[in-house]
Amino acid sequence: MEYKVKDISLASRGRQLIYWAERNMPVLMRIRERFERERPLAGITIAASLHVTKETAVLVRTLARGGARVALVPSNPLSTQDEVAAALAEEGVAVYAWRGMNEREYYNAIGFALSFSPDITMDDGADLTASVHKLAYGASDDTVQHIRETAGSIDLAKLASRIRGGTEETTTGVIRLKALHREGKLLYPIIAVNESYTKYLFDNRYGTGQSTWDGILRATNMLVAGKVVVVAGYGWVGRGIATRARGLGARRVIVTEVNPVRALEAVFDGFEVMPISRAAEIGDVFITATGDVRVISLDHILRMKDGAILANAGHFNVEIDVEGLERVARSKRTIRPYLEEYELPNGKRVYLIGEGRLVNLVAAEGHPSEVMDMSFANQALAAEYLVKNKLGVGVYKLPDELDVEVAKLKLSSMGIEIDELTEEQRRYITSWELGT
Amino acid sequence: MEYKVKDISLASRGRQLIYWAERNMPVLMRIRERFERERPLAGITIAASLHVTKETAVLVRTLARGGARVALVPSNPLSTQDEVAAALAEEGVAVYAWRGMNEREYYNAIGFALSFSPDITMDDGADLTASVHKLAYGASDDTVQHIRETAGSIDLAKLASRIRGGTEETTTGVIRLKALHREGKLLYPIIAVNESYTKYLFDNRYGTGQSTWDGILRATNMLVAGKVVVVAGYGWVGRGIATRARGLGARRVIVTEVNPVRALEAVFDGFEVMPISRAAEIGDVFITATGDVRVISLDHILRMKDGAILANAGHFNVEIDVEGLERVARSKRTIRPYLEEYELPNGKRVYLIGEGRLVNLVAAEGHPSEVMDMSFANQALAAEYLVKNKLGVGVYKLPDELDVEVAKLKLSSMGIEIDELTEEQRRYITSWELGT
Amino acid sequence: MEYKVKDISLASRGRQLIYWAERNMPVLMRIRERFERERPLAGITIAASLHVTKETAVLVRTLARGGARVALVPSNPLSTQDEVAAALAEEGVAVYAWRGMNEREYYNAIGFALSFSPDITMDDGADLTASVHKLAYGASDDTVQHIRETAGSIDLAKLASRIRGGTEETTTGVIRLKALHREGKLLYPIIAVNESYTKYLFDNRYGTGQSTWDGILRATNMLVAGKVVVVAGYGWVGRGIATRARGLGARRVIVTEVNPVRALEAVFDGFEVMPISRAAEIGDVFITATGDVRVISLDHILRMKDGAILANAGHFNVEIDVEGLERVARSKRTIRPYLEEYELPNGKRVYLIGEGRLVNLVAAEGHPSEVMDMSFANQALAAEYLVKNKLGVGVYKLPDELDVEVAKLKLSSMGIEIDELTEEQRRYITSWELGT
Amino acid sequence: MEYKVKDISLASRGRQLIYWAERNMPVLMRIRERFERERPLAGITIAASLHVTKETAVLVRTLARGGARVALVPSNPLSTQDEVAAALAEEGVAVYAWRGMNEREYYNAIGFALSFSPDITMDDGADLTASVHKLAYGASDDTVQHIRETAGSIDLAKLASRIRGGTEETTTGVIRLKALHREGKLLYPIIAVNESYTKYLFDNRYGTGQSTWDGILRATNMLVAGKVVVVAGYGWVGRGIATRARGLGARRVIVTEVNPVRALEAVFDGFEVMPISRAAEIGDVFITATGDVRVISLDHILRMKDGAILANAGHFNVEIDVEGLERVARSKRTIRPYLEEYELPNGKRVYLIGEGRLVNLVAAEGHPSEVMDMSFANQALAAEYLVKNKLGVGVYKLPDELDVEVAKLKLSSMGIEIDELTEEQRRYITSWELGT
Repeated sequence: MEYKVKDISLASRGRQLIYWAERNMPVLMRIRERFERERPLAGITIAASLHVTKETAVLVRTLARGGARVALVPSNPLSTQDEVAAALAEEGVAVYAWRGMNEREYYNAIGFALSFSPDITMDDGADLTASVHKLAYGASDDTVQHIRETAGSIDLAKLASRIRGGTEETTTGVIRLKALHREGKLLYPIIAVNESYTKYLFDNRYGTGQSTWDGILRATNMLVAGKVVVVAGYGWVGRGIATRARGLGARRVIVTEVNPVRALEAVFDGFEVMPISRAAEIGDVFITATGDVRVISLDHILRMKDGAILANAGHFNVEIDVEGLERVARSKRTIRPYLEEYELPNGKRVYLIGEGRLVNLVAAEGHPSEVMDMSFANQALAAEYLVKNKLGVGVYKLPDELDVEVAKLKLSSMGIEIDELTEEQRRYITSWELGT
Repeated sequence: MEYKVKDISLASRGRQLIYWAERNMPVLMRIRERFERERPLAGITIAASLHVTKETAVLVRTLARGGARVALVPSNPLSTQDEVAAALAEEGVAVYAWRGMNEREYYNAIGFALSFSPDITMDDGADLTASVHKLAYGASDDTVQHIRETAGSIDLAKLASRIRGGTEETTTGVIRLKALHREGKLLYPIIAVNESYTKYLFDNRYGTGQSTWDGILRATNMLVAGKVVVVAGYGWVGRGIATRARGLGARRVIVTEVNPVRALEAVFDGFEVMPISRAAEIGDVFITATGDVRVISLDHILRMKDGAILANAGHFNVEIDVEGLERVARSKRTIRPYLEEYELPNGKRVYLIGEGRLVNLVAAEGHPSEVMDMSFANQALAAEYLVKNKLGVGVYKLPDELDVEVAKLKLSSMGIEIDELTEEQRRYITSWELGT
Repeated sequence: MEYKVKDISLASRGRQLIYWAERNMPVLMRIRERFERERPLAGITIAASLHVTKETAVLVRTLARGGARVALVPSNPLSTQDEVAAALAEEGVAVYAWRGMNEREYYNAIGFALSFSPDITMDDGADLTASVHKLAYGASDDTVQHIRETAGSIDLAKLASRIRGGTEETTTGVIRLKALHREGKLLYPIIAVNESYTKYLFDNRYGTGQSTWDGILRATNMLVAGKVVVVAGYGWVGRGIATRARGLGARRVIVTEVNPVRALEAVFDGFEVMPISRAAEIGDVFITATGDVRVISLDHILRMKDGAILANAGHFNVEIDVEGLERVARSKRTIRPYLEEYELPNGKRVYLIGEGRLVNLVAAEGHPSEVMDMSFANQALAAEYLVKNKLGVGVYKLPDELDVEVAKLKLSSMGIEIDELTEEQRRYITSWELGT
Repeated sequence: MEYKVKDISLASRGRQLIYWAERNMPVLMRIRERFERERPLAGITIAASLHVTKETAVLVRTLARGGARVALVPSNPLSTQDEVAAALAEEGVAVYAWRGMNEREYYNAIGFALSFSPDITMDDGADLTASVHKLAYGASDDTVQHIRETAGSIDLAKLASRIRGGTEETTTGVIRLKALHREGKLLYPIIAVNESYTKYLFDNRYGTGQSTWDGILRATNMLVAGKVVVVAGYGWVGRGIATRARGLGARRVIVTEVNPVRALEAVFDGFEVMPISRAAEIGDVFITATGDVRVISLDHILRMKDGAILANAGHFNVEIDVEGLERVARSKRTIRPYLEEYELPNGKRVYLIGEGRLVNLVAAEGHPSEVMDMSFANQALAAEYLVKNKLGVGVYKLPDELDVEVAKLKLSSMGIEIDELTEEQRRYITSWELGT
């Protein structure tokens, strides 16, 4: 099987979308030009578990021009853009992806990707990498079962040993992989793309900050001005969302945190901070961005005002207790695309966006191309780096020079010039004698 | 000699100022209570080179209650609050400080501090620590000469060897001391207080951000709304200043940088970025915050518009080429306190605030107590840490637990509660198996 | 003919949308309750030319519950939500509306509305009212021709004389109707709903401010952070758009104006101001909000950077010279829904959203319900006012008491309480003797 | 007596301050040039009751160059800059002003001004104009008594009849004078300078917005970031203060209002709104800007948190119940210049800035020159207008053309160009036929 997509006839619309993304990803396009000349990935097979969006397509094309064979599967069951999947399939990429997969299909996709016996895994949330490790350690849960169904004749237990390295895109994924490494179980080197400055300082803050609101507005058409917005988590994603809430005119922006330093930073950044149990009673809109589980519990939901809106911007759909909500709700119905109304036992109604999955990818189109440009430039460079360097097992950050290179390319693509240190300045900054 | 201040009769006004600072420094006051009980610094002599302000007085009193003998000298010739110096002197602190010292007097003060043969040096900009090292390495420049004049009978070359450790407050100082260490010349351990989260994330950004503008407004009474503001440097200080410029209504806020990642961050934060040579031609107000030398050169000044205002927020008065300006100016006169008018050879006039020294300390009162509360809590804890722990030579960050403790105390003093991880959440965040 | 819509089977989805709007329009719902009891519009026929959206449906239902017979037609060829039109048709409203009408169909719709011989005209942009006047003055252009095709046997020249009054929703429409009145040609009284505080201070600024960006993001998925945004016009709409541009992180927000006072206000609000001819060369995104014609001319377009994006937020599609663009473009193609790429003779490409029509209604869903709540509360009260009061010919603002009443209902629906003057305060504020 | 000031030897420092103001008041300086040529005020005597600041000096000089004889007295007992008063006295202006007048001296000053038998009164808060009217109506309270002491031989009852007209600078003053007119008692025409766009849209919002915070920072040196700020009143002044509070990083900005429309605007602008009695319990800083009396009552003060800071930005010192506070306080002492600590019966301490008088004028320097430039340009033009036009009794706004002229001069002084309507655009905007 070469590919499995929703409808191959969507390819032409997909190509338009990719064209639009390419126009807005000048850094990655510049790297693509070099890759075409240098073919650094010749002979390499990459299994990529990424949101199948127009921006990912630009990355996949870039890897392919660099010589790689790419198998692409989704990193979330609801985030695939079917037109894009079709376009890539038509171009010969091994895509196995459609919007609205169930869990079995989702892991079938991973099995499909692994059937190519990859040299490199490229991951977004670490489902793919965790699967490879589960297989290596002989786990046998449902997900492993589903993987086997599509993995063909490959020896799944031995996969890890022939993988040269992997990359990981997200905070959540990096946390998982570091946990794996801490337990001494990591089997191959990982480049934590999320730790590149030009990734986490931009994509998480500006990308998710805007696109989370884009998703909420498309799902609800609500007015942000005048609202009480509650953001759970003040990491890079949370602060992006809180900042944009302010920028869109929210009346109160309340942050909840477990980390005192971050909580204090939120306070000094001009936000209110309080426990989620108290915030639950006054919020109009709740957005989770913590990477942790049941941050909004059923108990919190039951305290909310009639009409409260719930959305998740974290990687997995565990931050809001959707299960609990489903269990107790008197009734449930779809009001608009990606907007579910739940009637609670107390008679109040709450509104859940996109089943509690990543709101920006489900209800909108994920991060704008302009930030994915840098994130995926780092992905492309990470793949090249894994090929060119022999790394021991561990979780690595890309070298600073590559990071700075990405920043320079981005500035130059925007027509922005900056200063350089003079010789005198370089000397001054490295001397200890010169003082008052 | 017990002390040397401008006018001891100012003590009573100084005590009022310190009272006001104490009201706004609840974290340090909480530490003081513990220090009074536990006396962790009993028998320790501390030589402190800090801005002699009301907030520093609260720190000095706290160290004294902890058992330390403190010798206090300025870290900048223009930043001393004479009332505060008087109040401390009257309380028995060995203060040698007045506003408007010349260079000789400034190093005399350091000599005075060293004459106490300190166990710990507490520094702000690293002039004191650099002096100790110069003396140890037998340097003999003017500054060393001035130090000898007041150091009494102490063997200055041997001082370093009996110092247990030092602390450093600023970015600039830490850069100097790391340079010293890189050259293999550092002689005792340094705690880089500036690297505590509860210091650099707050003091540099919110403290300098606000107080820089406070200084500029006191010196000029200008309206920020409608102005073109140029901020050189987008470190923590620079971004604080740029953010407040926006918050005060500036029409354009232009950032200049040499670091591509920071430059890009400025762009995505909503600021313009361009080379200083271009910005020079369009700015109304220029503020340097780079830690480097001649960032605004004479050539840049000559390109400026008539009426341009120049201020420095970096530690040393080297960022603006004041020397060059003095050399070429046709005339110079004082318009208001801390505001000098220079007539350039091209007939235009530019206005320099506070001789290009730290504008917030010279023309206003330095950081508000509320941020110094955390910075100086870290200083007090660093002194205690040096006494209780035997460290090898090196530049250290305070342990995270102390940092978190400061944040918790601050939140609680503001009446703000935050969440704690549930057991389920703690488990989830440390597991790698749980995914989609 | 009872109605003409795209597809009556969309009614059920339309009802869901209207339900969602009703939840977010508490003021209008409160008025509806009273209308149901009091039936103030019994026996009245209203011809309404409004954007056929879910919010308009809430208004139409309210008028109907008040006793009115309503004929509803679009006020823009591209803004109809077909599901909503279907739902209203099924409920017995005389709707003649579908998305994507051509000009002939658009005026056919007006003919249909007039065939009911209305007592009141309710207008949005003044096309309906202007048509009634053209008919009264015997004009005979194409639009009149198209009106006649659907107007049935009614004596169109006499229509105006039996109309009791009209209402107008927009700045643009009010300007047209005041021009008509200035020429001495207005034939019946108009209530300028746009001049109610609770309309123009909110709907134009917060509604269009947010929904314009919503439309642009849906059409382009661009990142606002880092962009140079040009807003033509600094009226209420323009300042809403500029403020949100800032809130979304734009690097530069440039305003163009013809009115010096507004231009100065923009400057002091923290925006750049320059002529459009200069702004044309540096903008990434251009948004018109002036109410005037050819504000972005072909000449301006030809100066733009490759990749420039053009959108219009003003009532009519005349602000950008689309005609000129069509005339000279080498090629044109659709990239995404509502996004057209034009290749210019100079080889550069520019992107036009929604054919230069109202971007928030074409590419998104128009103003959020929360602001239309107040705007349409004013519409409902204006209709009632026209029925209960005999007004001479003229353009009127609703009485302040009604305005204040709407504000009070809105605050109370949000759970917000405010202060009342004490007796002492009331006396003080009306006395002239009390001074220093 | 020619003048009465604190110390004539301060004149030279005063001249420096005025020089600095002149550099920043280009519009008024442009008008001065014309006045010097045209002498429109030749033979006119102006009695001016204004804050005696460097900006007022620039106005007074301008009036004098236009030919007027000017008698200048303060409009607030605490706002005089003694250096400026000295400089003007030395230049021959009849100044009667020093900082810290008591009530008797304040009205003596008004008597002094009236002793010149003015043709025009120029007022700021309407104390002067109200006095003229009290005298005309034969009132005999204390203030009248004090006026007589310095008025010389003039027939005070007849003064009003020979006054050609007056001007009024503030919202508060205009409210008083309209009340006077409503009662049918106004005796000569008043130009409400406050109603010029280029005055009230700028001076009240940007000037007071910034300078209120400048005053609070100078008095307290507090950090705004992290604070809960309560602003009473959301008129132009209040919204300026609230906006800058946000811009300086306040954690919560709470607005209190009595007007529902303004309250709603505050909500949609992103502020919290609640009754002052509730806000009293949670605020860290309270700022009144209502123009009304006892907005913060003793009861509110008693509910406040320990450490609350109180400031007033309204014209008169009646907004905070200082009397009540003085009555019940256990003790009171001065902590810093313009900062009084009150110990309440409940043991808590609150801090009052500048005795509850205009905080920006008492604790800082009033509005920056850049906004007074426009306000006083309007004053100068109003004086000229009164001389050149014969107006009936009433309260007038300056003609729009003058307003627009001021805006144009300001833009041009800032080097900002704007667009002009094309012929096509002018036609379009005045036509009613052109629609969809």
